[in-house]
Amino acid sequence: MNKIPLKGVIAYPVTPFDHHENVDIPLFKKQVERLVQSGSHAIAPLGSTGVLPYLNDSEKEALTEATIQQVAGRVPTLVGVSNLTTERTIYHAQFAEKAGATAVMIIPMSYWKLTDDEIVQHYDAVSSKISIPIMAYNNPATSGVDMSTTLLKRLLQIPNVTMIKESTGDVQRMHLLRKELGEEVAFYNGSNPLALAAFAAGAHGWCTAAPNLIPELNIALYNAVMDNNLEKARKIFYKQADLLRFIVAKGLPRSVKAGLDLLGVGGGAFRSPLKPLSDEEITELDSILSTIKGGVTV
Amino acid sequence: MNKIPLKGVIAYPVTPFDHHENVDIPLFKKQVERLVQSGSHAIAPLGSTGVLPYLNDSEKEALTEATIQQVAGRVPTLVGVSNLTTERTIYHAQFAEKAGATAVMIIPMSYWKLTDDEIVQHYDAVSSKISIPIMAYNNPATSGVDMSTTLLKRLLQIPNVTMIKESTGDVQRMHLLRKELGEEVAFYNGSNPLALAAFAAGAHGWCTAAPNLIPELNIALYNAVMDNNLEKARKIFYKQADLLRFIVAKGLPRSVKAGLDLLGVGGGAFRSPLKPLSDEEITELDSILSTIKGGVTV
Amino acid sequence: MNKIPLKGVIAYPVTPFDHHENVDIPLFKKQVERLVQSGSHAIAPLGSTGVLPYLNDSEKEALTEATIQQVAGRVPTLVGVSNLTTERTIYHAQFAEKAGATAVMIIPMSYWKLTDDEIVQHYDAVSSKISIPIMAYNNPATSGVDMSTTLLKRLLQIPNVTMIKESTGDVQRMHLLRKELGEEVAFYNGSNPLALAAFAAGAHGWCTAAPNLIPELNIALYNAVMDNNLEKARKIFYKQADLLRFIVAKGLPRSVKAGLDLLGVGGGAFRSPLKPLSDEEITELDSILSTIKGGVTV
Amino acid sequence: MNKIPLKGVIAYPVTPFDHHENVDIPLFKKQVERLVQSGSHAIAPLGSTGVLPYLNDSEKEALTEATIQQVAGRVPTLVGVSNLTTERTIYHAQFAEKAGATAVMIIPMSYWKLTDDEIVQHYDAVSSKISIPIMAYNNPATSGVDMSTTLLKRLLQIPNVTMIKESTGDVQRMHLLRKELGEEVAFYNGSNPLALAAFAAGAHGWCTAAPNLIPELNIALYNAVMDNNLEKARKIFYKQADLLRFIVAKGLPRSVKAGLDLLGVGGGAFRSPLKPLSDEEITELDSILSTIKGGVTV
Repeated sequence: MNKIPLKGVIAYPVTPFDHHENVDIPLFKKQVERLVQSGSHAIAPLGSTGVLPYLNDSEKEALTEATIQQVAGRVPTLVGVSNLTTERTIYHAQFAEKAGATAVMIIPMSYWKLTDDEIVQHYDAVSSKISIPIMAYNNPATSGVDMSTTLLKRLLQIPNVTMIKESTGDVQRMHLLRKELGEEVAFYNGSNPLALAAFAAGAHGWCTAAPNLIPELNIALYNAVMDNNLEKARKIFYKQADLLRFIVAKGLPRSVKAGLDLLGVGGGAFRSPLKPLSDEEITELDSILSTIKGGVTV
Repeated sequence: MNKIPLKGVIAYPVTPFDHHENVDIPLFKKQVERLVQSGSHAIAPLGSTGVLPYLNDSEKEALTEATIQQVAGRVPTLVGVSNLTTERTIYHAQFAEKAGATAVMIIPMSYWKLTDDEIVQHYDAVSSKISIPIMAYNNPATSGVDMSTTLLKRLLQIPNVTMIKESTGDVQRMHLLRKELGEEVAFYNGSNPLALAAFAAGAHGWCTAAPNLIPELNIALYNAVMDNNLEKARKIFYKQADLLRFIVAKGLPRSVKAGLDLLGVGGGAFRSPLKPLSDEEITELDSILSTIKGGVTV
Repeated sequence: MNKIPLKGVIAYPVTPFDHHENVDIPLFKKQVERLVQSGSHAIAPLGSTGVLPYLNDSEKEALTEATIQQVAGRVPTLVGVSNLTTERTIYHAQFAEKAGATAVMIIPMSYWKLTDDEIVQHYDAVSSKISIPIMAYNNPATSGVDMSTTLLKRLLQIPNVTMIKESTGDVQRMHLLRKELGEEVAFYNGSNPLALAAFAAGAHGWCTAAPNLIPELNIALYNAVMDNNLEKARKIFYKQADLLRFIVAKGLPRSVKAGLDLLGVGGGAFRSPLKPLSDEEITELDSILSTIKGGVTV
Repeated sequence: MNKIPLKGVIAYPVTPFDHHENVDIPLFKKQVERLVQSGSHAIAPLGSTGVLPYLNDSEKEALTEATIQQVAGRVPTLVGVSNLTTERTIYHAQFAEKAGATAVMIIPMSYWKLTDDEIVQHYDAVSSKISIPIMAYNNPATSGVDMSTTLLKRLLQIPNVTMIKESTGDVQRMHLLRKELGEEVAFYNGSNPLALAAFAAGAHGWCTAAPNLIPELNIALYNAVMDNNLEKARKIFYKQADLLRFIVAKGLPRSVKAGLDLLGVGGGAFRSPLKPLSDEEITELDSILSTIKGGVTV
């Protein structure tokens, strides 16, 4: 097993619904296919973008299977299996492994703020039940708990925990990760507006929903960094900065689905209480996408 | 129907588990019985204290039925039915009504931060499917969304939304509620350390897990306020202030269960990843409870 | 010497300027006279309201002397002598004592965040050079440092430090002060919107600029609390809540001066870069004051 | 006049005191000389590092003159002239210009939070009285006001305001500056730990006290960026990251002076209430400096 099977642009699909608010698997597969064909380096269903917490168990299973079937081994898959209870997290992690996922992503969901020991035991319990790599995900805004570098160091000693996704939105945290956890730590950036700063800081990859809308620019940024061409990377980053800021400000599912509609792919409907962007916001997004399209020759 | 059927000390039971992490209904009923017998003015299962988000649907239903059966109409019941999706919220609200709940409590859970319109539509959809009162609950730390007084004013225009629970921890918000929503607005305090300030500000009631441990002091505080005796209220409040601060700082389920164990009632086990307090914390709680017991003559 | 010479409503005058931006001492004296005559229990020049940090040394001295001369012993005076350097703080504290001040107020101004030891040494150095009481003032928003109860406990062991003014805006801090520092600790509330909650919590006094505009209501609130009449206190508090919120939101010097103009007293001009409220804001203030005046029969 | 006369590493000297807490001009000149000789691209006295707010007018004037005399035109000088009042800011700006400063730096100090209009009038008033460039400085932690890009756009329309120093510590603000104010906006990074991210984002320069201790690494980082060599820049950045984090965490005057003592240059004494680092902190700094020295071959 490759312990660190992910790098580059890790693309997060949305979860489309039909007009009865049921998951639309055929549209989902079409969206996944686009992500693979446009050059994404990995596919990550059931993340925040994929509204994981709004889905029931059988929907999660269907989306896991649909992803792996559609990707068909062309690139790695990273399946979100986070759950408030340890028991359900193990259940979904085992399901993902059996279905053929390359790795699983786990955030320590915390309605009640977890202690460091509780978090270690949670990851440890899951790790002992699977044999594929785990990406530990730090996003205090979502999980309610901010994992210190001391805690992350403990997590990395658990056999399958080999990767860290960092989404505090503060590039200094990435510097600290690398200083504290060693130069070779595999950390991934989950904050879109930090894409350039994170790659400059040495991130292995970028976890992002943006390839649903502007895959060429996302991948070109990564390539410029790999080519050690900072000037080009900066130029490419600023071309997409408005879009990255917009999708974060408006919420990833809402803005990515609106963008997919604008691009003619179809984003699918929402599950209540989530609703589409307003007409005004859609017009703003259209304008950002048009400006980018007009200027893209990367 | 009484549109505002709640006042005074609204007691929140924990959800005890057995050592296989299954819900322990007999112990739960015993705990509810204690709350009723010690004089609580209402019983509110399936709140944060009751670890609502960690339970599956059938567990929620069993706890709802157990509460209503045990309370047997002696005091009102307020059942938590919050859910990320509108569909599941309606489902549980209807279940609670059918089971005989006096009212339901709904917080706008928000993995993806909801817009004001989405929140209004959410409450409106639930309200249209039931005919018992709804308490709208504002707790940005938990829900991820801070409902403005403007939004709360909109919610109060929805037929069944008649009560507001406020847990920002800032007493100025209660002042604002009363100024903006009218002197007669039925607002309830959900922040234990603010108990005195909230009653001073005119709160109708106090939503609290503390009656599991110190019901006499909780009720005595309310009575002193009703008697317009500020000096007595202040004195009684300071007697319980350490306990209120402790249970909030350590997490309500952990600290209340530890306290129930110390009192010989039995708090029940936890569902992973949540674990009990440390021995050191239990000793601290024991000392706080002993100090209170030594001095209680309200 | 009375070690705790202050209680009740401690009134903060503004510092009026003429149209050359020089301090207008005659107008200042007139404003101080109004504060004394309207029943304030103490007068506190050179606070934030008095734009202390915008004044040079000789202006501070002139305002200190003008206050003490005008008050003429009718009520105690509390003179602000805070300064970034210890040397200047000592200088102004000695000046105030010599001029006849009852007590001095000192906030640990911190361009560079001070350590606990630095703060203790600062107060200790000042205390050793004077023999009147010191009020230690905690206001992290202004000073950049939030003094813990542990630190305040250390400060209270310094001979002349006998009083604490608390302005974090969080009533829980007052509860903590009283629990940690003992029931008899003399703490004062510096957050206008918390006036009711702070008195309910046991504050000795209320440090406020509001008596420049609505002295009757401010003093009536204190009297209702002294009479142990919570219902009356609540009613009186809500009458003034809008005004208290407004003056804090818009800045005390700007809003109090605008109010003094509206009342026909004259607030005086500003020192640049500070400018008056906008016309729109003045209209809003006028409306708040008119509503209060219409309804005042305390 | 060159409207944007600064780029690269802009070095901030400390202000040394003697043991009577008087400014030590000879030692200051020695420190400035080291900064120039070690290759700094500009010298900036009377910044936060130089404890500007703790100095009186004649001390500020002496330090301004000493800097310009010692630098003797070898590199540009940027003199801090910020003051709470507009009148004093003009005074010091005029003094700096007359003394021969290349440019002045102005932060909108705000004991009372300034409105946008007040800030514009403040800069406008100063600008109209001098004819050298002004660097507008945004640092909400210090000034209490966070200048929006909309406000900065207004400031850049004032004749002499041609440069922006950004110290929110959030690299996204720099992205926004460049998107909103145009690709050619001259922005400077004032947050040491963001040095790499800011240069990646296109900063013209880095305002820093670090050249007092590790000038070779600071300048090497800038050179690597100019050479478009991201890998080298990253490597050099991580060599100095611990030191940059340390001096920010412990306070620039304290840590830089301790480092100058360790390097045998002499940092000078402090003005109370500021005190030196603790022995423990000095040992930590020594270890960081030794590790860097051991590995420096840039």
